Amino acid sequence: MRRSARGAEPDKNTMKKPQLFTPGPTPLPPETLLAMAQPIDYHRSPASATLIADVLTKLKHVFQTENDVLCLTTSGTGAMEGAVANLLSRGDKVLVIRSGKFGERWSDICTAYGVEVIPIDVTWGESVSPSTVEARLDASPDVKAVFATLCETSTGALHDIAALAQPTQLRPTLLVVDAVSALGADDLQMDAWGVDAVVSCSQKGLMTPPGLAFAALNARAWDAAARSDLPKYYLDFQKARDAGREGSTPYTPAITLLHALQASLTLLCAEGIRNAIARHARLAQATRSAVAALGLQLFATHPANTLTSIRLPAEVDGKAFIALMREKHGITYAGGQSQLSGKIFRIAHLGWMNENDVIVAIAALERGLAEIGYEMPLGAGVAAAQEVFRR
Amino acid sequence: MRRSARGAEPDKNTMKKPQLFTPGPTPLPPETLLAMAQPIDYHRSPASATLIADVLTKLKHVFQTENDVLCLTTSGTGAMEGAVANLLSRGDKVLVIRSGKFGERWSDICTAYGVEVIPIDVTWGESVSPSTVEARLDASPDVKAVFATLCETSTGALHDIAALAQPTQLRPTLLVVDAVSALGADDLQMDAWGVDAVVSCSQKGLMTPPGLAFAALNARAWDAAARSDLPKYYLDFQKARDAGREGSTPYTPAITLLHALQASLTLLCAEGIRNAIARHARLAQATRSAVAALGLQLFATHPANTLTSIRLPAEVDGKAFIALMREKHGITYAGGQSQLSGKIFRIAHLGWMNENDVIVAIAALERGLAEIGYEMPLGAGVAAAQEVFRR
Repeated sequence: MRRSARGAEPDKNTMKKPQLFTPGPTPLPPETLLAMAQPIDYHRSPASATLIADVLTKLKHVFQTENDVLCLTTSGTGAMEGAVANLLSRGDKVLVIRSGKFGERWSDICTAYGVEVIPIDVTWGESVSPSTVEARLDASPDVKAVFATLCETSTGALHDIAALAQPTQLRPTLLVVDAVSALGADDLQMDAWGVDAVVSCSQKGLMTPPGLAFAALNARAWDAAARSDLPKYYLDFQKARDAGREGSTPYTPAITLLHALQASLTLLCAEGIRNAIARHARLAQATRSAVAALGLQLFATHPANTLTSIRLPAEVDGKAFIALMREKHGITYAGGQSQLSGKIFRIAHLGWMNENDVIVAIAALERGLAEIGYEMPLGAGVAAAQEVFRR
Repeated sequence: MRRSARGAEPDKNTMKKPQLFTPGPTPLPPETLLAMAQPIDYHRSPASATLIADVLTKLKHVFQTENDVLCLTTSGTGAMEGAVANLLSRGDKVLVIRSGKFGERWSDICTAYGVEVIPIDVTWGESVSPSTVEARLDASPDVKAVFATLCETSTGALHDIAALAQPTQLRPTLLVVDAVSALGADDLQMDAWGVDAVVSCSQKGLMTPPGLAFAALNARAWDAAARSDLPKYYLDFQKARDAGREGSTPYTPAITLLHALQASLTLLCAEGIRNAIARHARLAQATRSAVAALGLQLFATHPANTLTSIRLPAEVDGKAFIALMREKHGITYAGGQSQLSGKIFRIAHLGWMNENDVIVAIAALERGLAEIGYEMPLGAGVAAAQEVFRR
């Protein structure tokens, strides 16, 4: 039997209903769960070819692109590394926007491959100014690519990808976007905005377990890929594209996860990507209103639809609070990462989520805060969220 | 409604029970299927740390090693590439035993990383002579590693890894073994035989869907990893080892597949790896006896326990035969790969398989052969298998 986080007290909440508000994995629809409990099929069967082709077609809708979408059996970082290894060559110089843990990951991957990184460091919680990036491009016209992040998951900050794409489109410089956490929740119009490469994965807005990652490249990016001389094999994008056009994959895919993804994409495509983004915007706005009504502060200056990062009051032990919420209330928020550990917590309203889920997240937050002695008007957060939903 | 492979005839077999006899994916136990239908958990929860630690401990039993076993979210090829990228350095020279498609894959990966490959080419279907490898090591004492394959899945040939490890142990040369298809079915005593690195994956003998890959390195291999200068990030073995010791992973793991793996490893560890290998040996022997009784010829000169490769009679259209078996009988055998396409077929008796499954595989084969006009004593294959099982 689990002990209450408060230790000495008996745990009265014995019928826990665990709910995840983490920015991946996100909750899975029952259709998706049950798709994985079906007997497994051979990944080279005709039925599997139909499955793969259907999933790749549906992904184009989510990516808002007519380009091929590639599917890899990795988590999101595999697709990030694939973008570096496939688009760049030895001696290339790149700009990397670093505004949190995942911007730093772009930088680390480039460095691992011997690519020269010009960092644009942004205070964590803030978003890069597009004019800063344009000025750096003017100063370094030989930059091969700009690596950016749609939603910096570690801080909850959204970046203005449409604005970043304006200068790169006018130059022989690729814009490569990590949409790992935000795809399906924050808008990213790959084709309309002129983004050259986008990577994402299965366990966030796509309501599927982790284990699949995706990449989409436009014609400029494929040209770069044809010239790239960095080593790659498993992450070879050209092989993935060519196989995908035949309803296949270069190596054995996580076929069970593809069935799960098909079930989730069927739901997402029925809703429509524009409606899904609007839904996430509504859930995010309600969460931000609730946070303000509880007297808490947002961490990100330009918060994403994907998740809301909240500063913890200085007197609160962040790790203990996360553990209390999980152990006593069955509610999993995400803590802070790296330098933000214990200083913020993050509520994702991402994927298979609606108004009722946000109400649960907020109401549980109120009870948790009350238990640790934080003073606020109980119910104020829920009321503020309800007002947003009523509009 | 599906059409019969014979086209004009109505398909009387309307209650199909699909059965896979492919060398991955292999059938999944119900415990494993249902583990994946549970609501997903956060991969950084205390419960997930316990799960990861348990899986890594159970994998040591299957690998017959005391070394750390690493878990990657990739299919088997990802672990193969990881072995190359982590153990070698620029300018290294290696021996690669190429006796089929997967030996060639070692060679292709090494070449992609600029490693110099000295190939030892073996006729497909045959197994390398250990004395040939030793002579090559004598001729090239600066060889950094030998890349070998336990069961060459494309041909069904088993390699004598214990014999190959004898000369490498006496030299500063690593023996790196692809046990992707054979782990749990053919014997591989990593520690006792002195194998330096072993890679495998989830969807073969481990009765789990594809999407997880594994690697184990001994002290000599970790020394090489510490010196390696090839680029890697997602496939970094040292980061995977360090995180694994904390019940974690460097990047988001396929947590759903880890739950599935735990369910299957619980079954496999309860049976015991030595018993599992003996079971596979029995199933393989029965299959070979049946093949002989039906007047068919084995393709591999030293067949593995993992799968049986069978030459198709010259008059048989191999692809049509595979399709007939699948469409009419619900039985999926694997066809030939690369140069063997249409010339052989492969029956895997691998993973969650017992005597009754082999009887089904053989009996269906008899009916399929009879339908295409191949002359043989109907029932002879099943009888021969039964004789093996009675012993």
